Amino acid sequence: MDGRSGCAINLSIEVLGDRWSMIILRDIMFGNFRSYRELLTHSLEGIATNILAARLKHLEAEGLVTIAADPQHKQRKIYSLTEKSIALVPVLAQLGAWGVRFLSPAPELAVRARVLAEGGPDMWEDFMDELREIHLGIARPAGSRSVLAELQDAYLAELQKIEAARKA
Amino acid sequence: MDGRSGCAINLSIEVLGDRWSMIILRDIMFGNFRSYRELLTHSLEGIATNILAARLKHLEAEGLVTIAADPQHKQRKIYSLTEKSIALVPVLAQLGAWGVRFLSPAPELAVRARVLAEGGPDMWEDFMDELREIHLGIARPAGSRSVLAELQDAYLAELQKIEAARKA
Repeated sequence: MDGRSGCAINLSIEVLGDRWSMIILRDIMFGNFRSYRELLTHSLEGIATNILAARLKHLEAEGLVTIAADPQHKQRKIYSLTEKSIALVPVLAQLGAWGVRFLSPAPELAVRARVLAEGGPDMWEDFMDELREIHLGIARPAGSRSVLAELQDAYLAELQKIEAARKA
Repeated sequence: MDGRSGCAINLSIEVLGDRWSMIILRDIMFGNFRSYRELLTHSLEGIATNILAARLKHLEAEGLVTIAADPQHKQRKIYSLTEKSIALVPVLAQLGAWGVRFLSPAPELAVRARVLAEGGPDMWEDFMDELREIHLGIARPAGSRSVLAELQDAYLAELQKIEAARKA
């Protein structure tokens, strides 16, 4: 960190700078993977065990995740997002929108980023409220919008479309 | 890149993943540093010559900067942003806004990120149009808004405030 400035963009990049930290936050946020085992086995990017363990420690030290015993299985630890990492939703939404536009992602993996980009700030606010409910226990009124379900539905619809095109 | 997914967020992080690439784009975008020498000597983060050279090559290979002879000094090469990197303005704006809120940046280095965050999508669009004029030669009507000048004014006003507080 020596010789680095206190610029807001630079500090953000310092904290989030290595790509694995961002990927892990993405997986907790969008995949709702909460345990070390889920994060390891469901990782689309094939993260290595030592990297996952080190980055989770980094994320915890930076206040981006917390770790606690799972109320349902006392031996299992679960990771939760914090207000600080939930507030990254607009950053990840803009990053995904940029990737969809310029980097030709796989169609079934682009659809959630596209839906989130098109939903705009209103959808991001609803998603952050949903994440606050899941990760921070801040309840919402019954029947509140589930952006996670909307993203999952869009993903499954895209998979079906790809499957139908393959059969045709 | 083996074993990595084609997810839109992941691809974006792959391309922008190392922090120096983002810092160099920030310096070209907000500092209007256009030559290797300017980027090296004005770097707030003290970037090393070999890292700067390697990252500029990476940015060029990814289509995020172009390099050409300066029309004013034929021996000098200048770097320009592309539509692909100009489209990162909303990502950097959101990243700066997050940094201002959670990471306690130095006040004089936070003010531009704060102004850009408060300006919202309208200001980002105007800023992208200004960057398209500077870097891509796409002229705007005379008297168009200069977001760069607004950010610079806000920065100088903040410096004066800090100076006044020190004297008081």
